[in-house]
Amino acid sequence: MAERRPRVSTEPPRGMRDILPDEAELRDETARTILGVYRRYGFRRVETPALENIQLLTRGEGGENEKLVFKVLKRGEKLDLGRAVSEADLVDLGLRFDLTVPLARYYAHHHARLPKPLKAVQIGPVWRAERPQKGRFRQFTQCDIDILGVKSEVAEIELILATTEALTALGLEDLTVRINDRRVLTAMALWCGFAPDRHDSVFITLDKWDKLEPAAIAEELGQAGHPPAAITRMIERFTELKTEDDLEPLMAYVSDAETRTAVHGLRRIIQAARPETSIRFDATLVRGMSYYTGPIFEIQSARFSSSIAGGGRYDQMIGKILGQDVPATGFSIGFERAISILQDRPKEPGGSDRPVALLFDEKADDLATVLRAARALRSEGRRVSLEFRGKKKGVQLGALAEQGYGGYADFDGTERPEIKPLAGRSDEK
Amino acid sequence: MAERRPRVSTEPPRGMRDILPDEAELRDETARTILGVYRRYGFRRVETPALENIQLLTRGEGGENEKLVFKVLKRGEKLDLGRAVSEADLVDLGLRFDLTVPLARYYAHHHARLPKPLKAVQIGPVWRAERPQKGRFRQFTQCDIDILGVKSEVAEIELILATTEALTALGLEDLTVRINDRRVLTAMALWCGFAPDRHDSVFITLDKWDKLEPAAIAEELGQAGHPPAAITRMIERFTELKTEDDLEPLMAYVSDAETRTAVHGLRRIIQAARPETSIRFDATLVRGMSYYTGPIFEIQSARFSSSIAGGGRYDQMIGKILGQDVPATGFSIGFERAISILQDRPKEPGGSDRPVALLFDEKADDLATVLRAARALRSEGRRVSLEFRGKKKGVQLGALAEQGYGGYADFDGTERPEIKPLAGRSDEK
Repeated sequence: MAERRPRVSTEPPRGMRDILPDEAELRDETARTILGVYRRYGFRRVETPALENIQLLTRGEGGENEKLVFKVLKRGEKLDLGRAVSEADLVDLGLRFDLTVPLARYYAHHHARLPKPLKAVQIGPVWRAERPQKGRFRQFTQCDIDILGVKSEVAEIELILATTEALTALGLEDLTVRINDRRVLTAMALWCGFAPDRHDSVFITLDKWDKLEPAAIAEELGQAGHPPAAITRMIERFTELKTEDDLEPLMAYVSDAETRTAVHGLRRIIQAARPETSIRFDATLVRGMSYYTGPIFEIQSARFSSSIAGGGRYDQMIGKILGQDVPATGFSIGFERAISILQDRPKEPGGSDRPVALLFDEKADDLATVLRAARALRSEGRRVSLEFRGKKKGVQLGALAEQGYGGYADFDGTERPEIKPLAGRSDEK
Repeated sequence: MAERRPRVSTEPPRGMRDILPDEAELRDETARTILGVYRRYGFRRVETPALENIQLLTRGEGGENEKLVFKVLKRGEKLDLGRAVSEADLVDLGLRFDLTVPLARYYAHHHARLPKPLKAVQIGPVWRAERPQKGRFRQFTQCDIDILGVKSEVAEIELILATTEALTALGLEDLTVRINDRRVLTAMALWCGFAPDRHDSVFITLDKWDKLEPAAIAEELGQAGHPPAAITRMIERFTELKTEDDLEPLMAYVSDAETRTAVHGLRRIIQAARPETSIRFDATLVRGMSYYTGPIFEIQSARFSSSIAGGGRYDQMIGKILGQDVPATGFSIGFERAISILQDRPKEPGGSDRPVALLFDEKADDLATVLRAARALRSEGRRVSLEFRGKKKGVQLGALAEQGYGGYADFDGTERPEIKPLAGRSDEK
């Protein structure tokens, strides 16, 4: 063998992954299904570059994610290592950490040429330099829909109906939509007696309502130094607030116009979405991002604890870039989560879309006829791969079955070789 | 209005682009069509991360492209600005500049779990920090197929037939495949009398054969200091070498086994591909990458001067990473070039897949019935967007037509509002 340079590591970068063919094809099919549903709802495809100017990615809208940006070194003359005293001297670009901040920039830049309102669908990778852990990756795909320019709850209703339909089209079952409103959360916290500047701390604990007993919630809030009276009141009220009908008594306590608008909106969304979805008010739904300003929502599947999709209204983000307020609301499917659920499903053996191997002998067979046979099969919509006939037929057929082939044809000199089925793979249930 | 932070630039980074909905949808459709054809040929989807370890991207296989890598700053404790004296101290990752080097790493890492041979199809963005110029971008999409593990020219035949079919499926016409072989090029250059260590310089000039007169070619070679006798011989021979039939006389001059194998292979590929494609031998086809080791090929459309797809055999690249030779050959569609050709085509007015706007009045109309009407239309496969009815109907319908809507329905209180056509857009020919 020729002389070799030292071998290089063949691992992908830490926390990132290579995708093998079976999963890659599942991902393609999943994206195609989701996009198909969103297109039927009138959403238009939008794409931005993976890189953004670093200033955009470090303005504060991204919260904690801004600390996780992969930063790109300046190039050429702009990079002066000798004079660099801080990161800012070295860096001009970063990889996007979500699709929302880039969409806000995109809308601000192109709004004159875009439909009004804009119903946008995006699907693409984002990058976060998180500490790698099971199920968390440093590159992962997000799939977002956003409606920009609509104040009315009709936007939320469309987002919820479209996303539920998309997840159902993927075969996900027993979906529940949970919905709340940031303004209701804030009103509740104020009314209970928590200090306005400490609401974030209250919400972080409230977010654990599903997992902790009320006593544990109270204890955590107490340890954080919140007033005991507020804590008691909160535990009482949130225990009562089970459905949107329980919002009515809330109106007796909290009566400012903004909260009334929020409650009215929640009821309207729930009412409109109920015929098609299993939707319920959840007073303890918080969602992390600080940019939300109105309704917030998540979708869960009964069989999995964490949510598959989440979103909310963020009426102030675009204004911070455009200099002019634009109402906006979005819903993001956890694409990686959906893929991992779909991968765990039992596989159906022998799907009709499985490829066929056309086995031939390179020396003995007439290549032109082999090619015509393959062409004829492909023209019927079949997936056909030319494969050299192996020495041990049983071994070869076993390997082809493992690779996902559904059938094979032994080239017999004709343009119509017979297709024989192959047994399913060993990983099939 | 609320107080604003300073506005940030809304431009995408220099040399990169935002993609508006019409183009984004054309890109989706184009990718879907290409992938559909390649799948029918038995190619399997493969995906690698956008980032690679910097060592992999700077080993020499990428030639000039390695100088164009966007490099990513180390993070956390690994970044010690005070001690950094060179770029290597600061950088651990880079954005991939092509899909071939990552595929070689992927194959080296996963080959035990992959089909043998592997017929891979990849589509995704790559990044190069080139000086921005018209039609060249710093992020662009590549679409590659590769066959790893097949020495025989059957691999090249499959690549050429599949890629021609994919481009034809896009509606591209008058396609010509040009083919040559690196070993034939080298044999010719040797036989003409050029110094072996200066072949690269000869090939750079030979690559201009299409554009320059023979006298200009000779002049450029002379200025580069090549021997006059070799130049004269080359001009003579390359003027004669018009088709693969002219390779026969070449065999009289050059008779080593490797060149004979190469010539035999070229004839076999041309013969097998000819019934389905317009393929011709082109002795002046060079292609830039230094990693090619055998047949090289390009596809052109009669109406455009530059090529739409290009590729070749690279039997030594994977061995440099895996430590064991794996024969490999690939074909790459210039996705951005294909898109720009498809965008320039006259548009067909009123395609059946155009969305329909369902106009309604938020206050007067019953939202539940509006939603049911939209649902009924969508269940027939139509794309339906809910739109608030505007004050000036003519203005609104004009705007909808401009946005690409093919029809609209005025909600009339029923679940079956009538769909009326909208005239085409002003940019339609």
